[in-house]
Amino acid sequence: MASDIRLKEQLPNLTDRIVRSYKEIGTINHLGHSPLPSAEVISSVLDDLREIIFPGYRRRQGLHHGNVAYYVGSLIDGLHDKLTAQLGRALQHEARVQIEDEDDIDEDVDYEAKGQAIAVTFLESLPRLREILATDVDAAYDGDPACKSHDEIVFCYPGLQAITIYRLAHELYNLGVPFIPRMMTELAHHETGIDIHPGAQIGNYFFIDHGTGVVIGETCEIGERVKLYQGVTLGALSFAKDSDGNLVRGMKRHPTIEDGVVIYASATVLGGKTTIGHDSVIGSSVWLTKSVAPHTTVILEKPKLIMRADIKDDEDSVSYDI
Amino acid sequence: MASDIRLKEQLPNLTDRIVRSYKEIGTINHLGHSPLPSAEVISSVLDDLREIIFPGYRRRQGLHHGNVAYYVGSLIDGLHDKLTAQLGRALQHEARVQIEDEDDIDEDVDYEAKGQAIAVTFLESLPRLREILATDVDAAYDGDPACKSHDEIVFCYPGLQAITIYRLAHELYNLGVPFIPRMMTELAHHETGIDIHPGAQIGNYFFIDHGTGVVIGETCEIGERVKLYQGVTLGALSFAKDSDGNLVRGMKRHPTIEDGVVIYASATVLGGKTTIGHDSVIGSSVWLTKSVAPHTTVILEKPKLIMRADIKDDEDSVSYDI
Amino acid sequence: MASDIRLKEQLPNLTDRIVRSYKEIGTINHLGHSPLPSAEVISSVLDDLREIIFPGYRRRQGLHHGNVAYYVGSLIDGLHDKLTAQLGRALQHEARVQIEDEDDIDEDVDYEAKGQAIAVTFLESLPRLREILATDVDAAYDGDPACKSHDEIVFCYPGLQAITIYRLAHELYNLGVPFIPRMMTELAHHETGIDIHPGAQIGNYFFIDHGTGVVIGETCEIGERVKLYQGVTLGALSFAKDSDGNLVRGMKRHPTIEDGVVIYASATVLGGKTTIGHDSVIGSSVWLTKSVAPHTTVILEKPKLIMRADIKDDEDSVSYDI
Repeated sequence: MASDIRLKEQLPNLTDRIVRSYKEIGTINHLGHSPLPSAEVISSVLDDLREIIFPGYRRRQGLHHGNVAYYVGSLIDGLHDKLTAQLGRALQHEARVQIEDEDDIDEDVDYEAKGQAIAVTFLESLPRLREILATDVDAAYDGDPACKSHDEIVFCYPGLQAITIYRLAHELYNLGVPFIPRMMTELAHHETGIDIHPGAQIGNYFFIDHGTGVVIGETCEIGERVKLYQGVTLGALSFAKDSDGNLVRGMKRHPTIEDGVVIYASATVLGGKTTIGHDSVIGSSVWLTKSVAPHTTVILEKPKLIMRADIKDDEDSVSYDI
Repeated sequence: MASDIRLKEQLPNLTDRIVRSYKEIGTINHLGHSPLPSAEVISSVLDDLREIIFPGYRRRQGLHHGNVAYYVGSLIDGLHDKLTAQLGRALQHEARVQIEDEDDIDEDVDYEAKGQAIAVTFLESLPRLREILATDVDAAYDGDPACKSHDEIVFCYPGLQAITIYRLAHELYNLGVPFIPRMMTELAHHETGIDIHPGAQIGNYFFIDHGTGVVIGETCEIGERVKLYQGVTLGALSFAKDSDGNLVRGMKRHPTIEDGVVIYASATVLGGKTTIGHDSVIGSSVWLTKSVAPHTTVILEKPKLIMRADIKDDEDSVSYDI
Repeated sequence: MASDIRLKEQLPNLTDRIVRSYKEIGTINHLGHSPLPSAEVISSVLDDLREIIFPGYRRRQGLHHGNVAYYVGSLIDGLHDKLTAQLGRALQHEARVQIEDEDDIDEDVDYEAKGQAIAVTFLESLPRLREILATDVDAAYDGDPACKSHDEIVFCYPGLQAITIYRLAHELYNLGVPFIPRMMTELAHHETGIDIHPGAQIGNYFFIDHGTGVVIGETCEIGERVKLYQGVTLGALSFAKDSDGNLVRGMKRHPTIEDGVVIYASATVLGGKTTIGHDSVIGSSVWLTKSVAPHTTVILEKPKLIMRADIKDDEDSVSYDI
């Protein structure tokens, strides 16, 4: 390559400047610490879990009741090892983040042993999670006229994909695992456009149709048989601050949605004290910050739309006047 | 790894519990059946098709009129084989899903032969699809002031990517292919945030700008020279149920958008009987469930916004009052 | 495979038809020209840049202050070579696009030398970009009650991912690089659902929470300490056309957002003359096309919602009346 060699000679100096900046700005490096969980391994853990929950759809076809036990047994064994290591890393990382003085780090804590205990408890929950996810698949079939079969849902519905990852992440969240549940749900967010915080609580028979743009906040409580469409936000209304002016983390800031509620596309429901009563219907594009009684339909008043025949004019610009 | 061996000894028992659940909950397994289409092969089929429709942009550069015939011929040959196999699987799968008694399965049906016939018909449509997609690229160039060249559109516009996959999936949908058209459009949805059902009908010169959050339903009919922006929903208003209380599948539930209509960001148009007349403009955030005559501009009434100077108070919370 | 050989015999004829269409429809081919930038290489460039800006989070763990200089030096060296080649291709491509007569192409221009000069200038900006991105991470931590640590932000927040890629693309945009900045931001759009045009101008301490559906237009000007939520559109209102009826490209079409503004989910702000005054709050789902003074809160008037107890009827359809 016909390169200007004088320009290349600047590069070592630049490297020095960059490396010096790692000391000057330390908030966005991760140097010299215990390793973080690996995004790649967590992604493969999720793939393995989906193979176990929904066998025969993706990686391994030609499974039948005769050979599936070997396949699952091998996946479970691999998951045990991967999760033990990753959970150990997450626990160790959190301990160090919370300790301000490096001298206070207790080197004798066996984070991997703690990780293993959580990993096995988590894996033991898989049959129960499978039962719950089967109800979510039923909810999708019952709720979507465009759906032709249960297989179609498992195979390609992004809503089910996001809910599956959420339920797995939520299980780990409840077991006190730091960091990894959020990694999992952000992976689901990346894949489906659906953003569910792992701390949210969501009941059975949950269906999200289309899904792009859905946001479900950390302290949401959602009942059974709830159905959401694309662009629905279940979000926070106000952010309380303490006397130092810092955000208070952990308060209930997101709404409660009771059983049997349907929330149509682009509706927004905000606030920790906002409750949508059971069997209510929230119409498309509605914006709510107050509670609603059960068995209520909430829709926008017929929007006063301005409709006028277009007037062609001589100007060189085409615009619509507001 | 210093693992607790007693914990590991639980794993075989867990594997048994999981495998037993495959019999107890059969709706989310695919065991012992004919193989499903492969998501990976369908994804590579779409890549090959894009190489043929838009040669020289992605995988293979250095193409010119002298060598492109060999490249295309080789891709077409590979596509014939891949599609024949995948379409055969989809047809076989659908036949089995619809047969309740396994004894009724006609083992003599040659699904692969059927798949091949459809595959060749589909491939023969590629020159025609190329013509249509060239109009879509023109529509993007003419419709986006930020666009500097046609190459930019082919290379990186997510709207064109989603429309390309939709048109290919729609062709297969019209040829009666089950399952695979939906797999393709969900792949496009995953890549672009644009969700177009393969059953929708969309005319030439179609442009989606930005795109994230667009939903176009199964029974939409869209004319020529239509332009949509991000977050537009062309959706269903009501879901008819039959006398058993089950959803009726297949009725026209989504709107008709006539030629030359522009629909701005986050607008929502719902309902099978809703028609947007040709050359109309639907403004940003409008919500419509009634038809609109041709040459009409529909915008929100100036929203009655409450504007007030912020009042700093002594409370420890920062909120905005509703 | 039991294939019908007569069907396969149609394929060479089909290949000819397709290849002929490359001459008949030339707007969507890239044949016989200088190579375009490679999407794969640009993606790996972005990964390398993120390893340098946020070392120790992703690809390479176990980095510490003793070995990081070698790692960074090696990445910088590789980036120099990759960028020189890709920038050269982009400059050469743009020159050819603008020249209508192939005879006018100046074969003596050394596009790679030009590319190298820009590449080195760009790499020299990395310490400064690191400082700016550290402020963006601070803004995320200060702005999100669900966030537990700075590491969580770097590791998995899609908003930060999109802002990082935007700032890198914007630097190249300001250096006059064609094509590649848009490729980069569309990659970010694909990964996060956040669509920021590389031409936009955005100040420090910028936070996008959740993010899916955010659109920031080419001529936006955004100040410091601005916070956006999902689904916010900062878009254009009208598209001016010249006397030939073609779009005028380049005018300011998108709003100005001053320091300290917060814009909540699904709000839409349109127009090149629209300015949101500093320290204002734009509420969820607001739709604005007029300027707002500083220190103003803008919210929807309490929407007149129709709330009624649901009426069960005898019809076979379940619908909500509008």
